[in-house]
Amino acid sequence: MDHETAARTTLIRSASDAGSKVFATILTQSPISRIDIARQTGLSQAAVTKAVAPLVAAGLVDAPPVSQRDGTPGRPVSPVSIVRGAMVMLGIKVNVDEVIAVATDLSTRILVDERRTLTASDPDTVVGAILEVVASLSDQIGDKAPSIAGVGVSVSGDVDTSTGIVRESTLMGWTDVPLGDMLGERLGWPVTLENDVHALTVGEHWFGMGLGTASFAIVTIGRGIGSGLHLNGEVVTGAYGVAGEIGHLPLASPELVCPCGRRGCVEAAASTGAIESAVSRAHGRRIRIDEAVRLAHAGDPGAHAAFREAARIIGTAIATLVNLTGPEVVIIGGEGVSDFDLFEETLRDAFQAHAFGAAARCRIVTRPHTFQDWARGAAAAAIQSLVR
Amino acid sequence: MDHETAARTTLIRSASDAGSKVFATILTQSPISRIDIARQTGLSQAAVTKAVAPLVAAGLVDAPPVSQRDGTPGRPVSPVSIVRGAMVMLGIKVNVDEVIAVATDLSTRILVDERRTLTASDPDTVVGAILEVVASLSDQIGDKAPSIAGVGVSVSGDVDTSTGIVRESTLMGWTDVPLGDMLGERLGWPVTLENDVHALTVGEHWFGMGLGTASFAIVTIGRGIGSGLHLNGEVVTGAYGVAGEIGHLPLASPELVCPCGRRGCVEAAASTGAIESAVSRAHGRRIRIDEAVRLAHAGDPGAHAAFREAARIIGTAIATLVNLTGPEVVIIGGEGVSDFDLFEETLRDAFQAHAFGAAARCRIVTRPHTFQDWARGAAAAAIQSLVR
Repeated sequence: MDHETAARTTLIRSASDAGSKVFATILTQSPISRIDIARQTGLSQAAVTKAVAPLVAAGLVDAPPVSQRDGTPGRPVSPVSIVRGAMVMLGIKVNVDEVIAVATDLSTRILVDERRTLTASDPDTVVGAILEVVASLSDQIGDKAPSIAGVGVSVSGDVDTSTGIVRESTLMGWTDVPLGDMLGERLGWPVTLENDVHALTVGEHWFGMGLGTASFAIVTIGRGIGSGLHLNGEVVTGAYGVAGEIGHLPLASPELVCPCGRRGCVEAAASTGAIESAVSRAHGRRIRIDEAVRLAHAGDPGAHAAFREAARIIGTAIATLVNLTGPEVVIIGGEGVSDFDLFEETLRDAFQAHAFGAAARCRIVTRPHTFQDWARGAAAAAIQSLVR
Repeated sequence: MDHETAARTTLIRSASDAGSKVFATILTQSPISRIDIARQTGLSQAAVTKAVAPLVAAGLVDAPPVSQRDGTPGRPVSPVSIVRGAMVMLGIKVNVDEVIAVATDLSTRILVDERRTLTASDPDTVVGAILEVVASLSDQIGDKAPSIAGVGVSVSGDVDTSTGIVRESTLMGWTDVPLGDMLGERLGWPVTLENDVHALTVGEHWFGMGLGTASFAIVTIGRGIGSGLHLNGEVVTGAYGVAGEIGHLPLASPELVCPCGRRGCVEAAASTGAIESAVSRAHGRRIRIDEAVRLAHAGDPGAHAAFREAARIIGTAIATLVNLTGPEVVIIGGEGVSDFDLFEETLRDAFQAHAFGAAARCRIVTRPHTFQDWARGAAAAAIQSLVR
């Protein structure tokens, strides 16, 4: 990290509460006038002007030196903007079989990206792969590398952001892995560890589709089933670091044992693995998801029944989430979305059957998140950790 | 409403965003210094001082005219306090068999209370009973009656606060009842209609046990099963007015049809009515809850099994709520709490069996809410509606 990036980082981290609010507002809503910043943050215009000045001086925010309207410098109506390229953030999504990484600017626009297949999913192998992709990203961005200000890493499961420990990740097969420290020692940048769906939610909230809605939930379907909640203008992270664990709600038959060890979890009936098991049982041989999708599209009753049952459980789980938290919209993402036609009708019927009263008005939309979107979410979480 | 109360109401309602924040902070944390108000709201001390002045002038806030430390008036270290008696609020909880009402000061301290048994639960009968209790409360507080600034009314079910309509209340047997307008026309005060558990949550948040915790959920058990969520410093009310409907999560057997018409709802297996039905079936005669409790305490197997099943479903529902929203503490209230010994062990076991990872650390405590607490919650909701 060069001197300038270090100074910018320090400025953001040590900002007053008002300063942080002003920076976050400019970051996510550029260009925006000081008047609108004041309106949205509840601060006085004088307080906004005072908070903007050091950000401009440090090159993080751009303010037109002279208003084009009347020639008066720094007029509150002149919009200010984030200097997107003032810092580079790295975002890394850890999957069970690969690591996906991006380098982004301050608006999480992707500069370069990188993937590494994992030969194993133990922590040391994963750390090795992360070091490789980071080195490669750093090479690729060349003379921008000194502006890298931090690294966000996202993993599925129960992740303790404050200590950087992955407490439990069923997908990775990890318990109490201090991934934050393992990486921080070798990378030399601050590392922000976050649950993958929370990170995706932060990304959507700050830079994505969530903007403009008062509240939303992201539900991801596929190998894992997870969710992220954004209510009253903030991402819900849980007092103990756990929230949005829709994959582990006990809505399926108690006879089904989840890979996490609990009974009746949504994932035990509706994950990609559960669908593969059900179709394999129906056909008496090992069938992978691609073939299961083909069979279902071809009208195979066993495959159809497996997707229907998964869709019923997911729709019921979404009704559960909506009855409890009442978001304006539920965004379904995750790799399972590519075959949403196999889920949609049953999922919506189950949702309507269990949604309570006006909660049934909640819109359910799909959004195919790319693998890079997940890594962008990790970068967004790292940017957010700077501002807090 | 006398002239002074009307002026105070207008001042609070028309406050700027900063003014509202300052008033809410003084209201809930009196006595508090201006420095602490600035720290908590993120406003400058000048902005706080500016916001406090009109509140003092209107008699809503007390500020020592001269600091005892150094004789300088209005020093930011001198604490300011809410003038509790500056306004009176009425709070009314509508139950299926009675109406409970309180008159409170601005800190929801109860001045007088009143109850009326309902002979029927249709809207006209309820409105009549509310008019009676309001007249009686107004008489009892005598010369304070002109300071009544508003009325909060809370009802179980899907309540649209913005339009004052009870959209669906299974307990009351109501659909689309414009209770807000029915009352507003005859009472002459602003009426705030709120879901009963949301109102209780507002009361706990602003004036009760919730203070000091970053997040909490209230779960009420009894005739109805409901919940209220307080996350990231705010009560979750739902984009469409529905949230916290833990009683209608589909966690019970789909063979059980809930009075709301849906299948497998928590209430269908765990409400007082469901327990009565199960014990009645076991004994082949109609058994009411008081007798069911006595039978269970005496070791009757049928009664024991009914409470155990209810406890298992409630514990599973609490795990569901906690896995999704991650509160620091769950407060169990409602009239069912008086027999919590019959629920506790099974409820805690079910919670632990399904709580995911660190979510299992969430504390579960009980709090016996009195009927007056529910009415106080309605008064708190009316106070909150003033400030917004």
